[in-house]
Amino acid sequence: MTTNTTVRLGARPIGEPRHSDWIIAQEAIPEIGPGQFLVRVDMISLDPAMRGWLDDRPSYLPPVGIGDVMRAGAVGEIIASEHPQFPVGMGVQGAFGVQEFAVSDGQGVTRVDPRLGTPSMYLGVLGITGLTAYFGLFDHGKPKAGDTLVVSAAAGAVGSVVGQIGKINGCRVIGIAGGAEKCAYVTNELGFDDVIDYKNDNLREAFARTCPTGIDIYFDNVGGKILNAALGNLALNARVVICGAISQYNAETPTPGPSNYLSVLIRRATMSGFIVFDYVNQYRTAQKRLAAWVAEGRITAPETIIGGSVTDFPDVLLKLFTGDNVGKLVLDISGSRR
Amino acid sequence: MTTNTTVRLGARPIGEPRHSDWIIAQEAIPEIGPGQFLVRVDMISLDPAMRGWLDDRPSYLPPVGIGDVMRAGAVGEIIASEHPQFPVGMGVQGAFGVQEFAVSDGQGVTRVDPRLGTPSMYLGVLGITGLTAYFGLFDHGKPKAGDTLVVSAAAGAVGSVVGQIGKINGCRVIGIAGGAEKCAYVTNELGFDDVIDYKNDNLREAFARTCPTGIDIYFDNVGGKILNAALGNLALNARVVICGAISQYNAETPTPGPSNYLSVLIRRATMSGFIVFDYVNQYRTAQKRLAAWVAEGRITAPETIIGGSVTDFPDVLLKLFTGDNVGKLVLDISGSRR
Repeated sequence: MTTNTTVRLGARPIGEPRHSDWIIAQEAIPEIGPGQFLVRVDMISLDPAMRGWLDDRPSYLPPVGIGDVMRAGAVGEIIASEHPQFPVGMGVQGAFGVQEFAVSDGQGVTRVDPRLGTPSMYLGVLGITGLTAYFGLFDHGKPKAGDTLVVSAAAGAVGSVVGQIGKINGCRVIGIAGGAEKCAYVTNELGFDDVIDYKNDNLREAFARTCPTGIDIYFDNVGGKILNAALGNLALNARVVICGAISQYNAETPTPGPSNYLSVLIRRATMSGFIVFDYVNQYRTAQKRLAAWVAEGRITAPETIIGGSVTDFPDVLLKLFTGDNVGKLVLDISGSRR
Repeated sequence: MTTNTTVRLGARPIGEPRHSDWIIAQEAIPEIGPGQFLVRVDMISLDPAMRGWLDDRPSYLPPVGIGDVMRAGAVGEIIASEHPQFPVGMGVQGAFGVQEFAVSDGQGVTRVDPRLGTPSMYLGVLGITGLTAYFGLFDHGKPKAGDTLVVSAAAGAVGSVVGQIGKINGCRVIGIAGGAEKCAYVTNELGFDDVIDYKNDNLREAFARTCPTGIDIYFDNVGGKILNAALGNLALNARVVICGAISQYNAETPTPGPSNYLSVLIRRATMSGFIVFDYVNQYRTAQKRLAAWVAEGRITAPETIIGGSVTDFPDVLLKLFTGDNVGKLVLDISGSRR
């Protein structure tokens, strides 16, 4: 272990990121100073939001700079430390980036508590995706028993947790997913009440069939036509939670907005967005509740863990956009150094 | 006074309503039964929402049926009564329709209290438009001192009141209006801090100039391109109040939605719709506050009162969509019977 392999952004992608957009570099392992520690990165999170970070436009985080190490959530172990609260041997989760070793000052870093779950769970159900599901549904969806909750990208890392928390809280939960296999997974494995196959169903008929009294909560991860169709089927006082828009992340030109947005007026609805980082003071409470639900078997937290090295990142990233993966997508690089 | 002239819907308009879409009828003055009263209609309200009621699609109110008297808010005087709470001589406001005489059972009817304002004010600042401004701004806009409040259709009946309430509550208020004359009116007469001329200004530059720290509250009456541009300029935690979409009401095909809707996510914003009828139990309190602000000279409540008869309704309605009128548009038919 004398070099740090990093994946840096070489050029801003147009549409889907290509290999030529990335720079693979071999660098010296960085040195730490007072108040810092060195993390050996073991697992890297792949998230749809990554695509947005590559564009040079304002968002909730600044764009990844040209030449910078690609931003990514990761888990790892502290192997050197000059920070009293982060000792050697501690498991940690943070935005360590797509690289083998990272220096941190502890900002935004949380401890991986092995009593609550495995390291990869800290990138999924106990990490940003699970916390996004938790705060988005509770704080913006405001679920009540008997509500009809519709979740898009239902087989995905966020959607699968949203629907299962909805079930725990007495909602009737309808998932939206693409293809027979994913749809079967949503009802059979995740326990949703019903599912809409957006690749094969007529959306209008499917919403009428599955949501005869309208949608009380629509948790949107996809945007586009599915969001628009959902807006056309809102119940009175519906809550629309805008969590993401994966259908639009690779669009090269602005796609039309939802023409049904006036349903927000007609149905006295609320559409709101949120950023999970705003809830950082409540993470620990949420993680304990989520871990308990997992332990009780009330939440299934699927993971797709792909073994490889950091240089596999450009290929693995694309799996997010093909609609092939189920649950949380993780690149496990811990074997690549052994 | 032996006949009741009525304006009934003859055909559903495509685009702007035409004369051939209406039926002018001479009918007998209706008789009242127990629990009913007869109103002599004096003034009829013209509202952008009327256009939506003409289409055969679900909304917050059912469509006006073919052959039905056109729905309209109105004020008048009770001239016959078999209802103990609504005696002869009382001034009343209600959805009496485009006709000279109306029978009512009192549902949705409120007293015109001459201590608070004139009858026409009960169609404007003390009526549905003023109440819409009041509840939309307070309950959904949640104004705080120092907030930047942007109001579209700022010279209109609702927008003019929204902005003035915003000023009273310490907001920096920017209006959007069309043309130099209306823009001068918005700053000089209504006292807004600044104004954007959507017919002549570059919207992007105008928002950057007038809202350097972003929009905290956007109160939208117009939809379309202006809504989209505003969504591109939201401050963190912005509130977008969807009150109407007059730019789209005569559209014959669905217009594109706001492509910038993802700003709701990025800026942690909320977009919500509301219907003023949901606040009926709080009308009286709001009317007292609004009347006090008018009396103190803190709210200017412009009215465009057009004298005529009910048969002028089809022509006067079109004035809503040409952008020519300032403030509340009222058809005064009280002179047509003398």
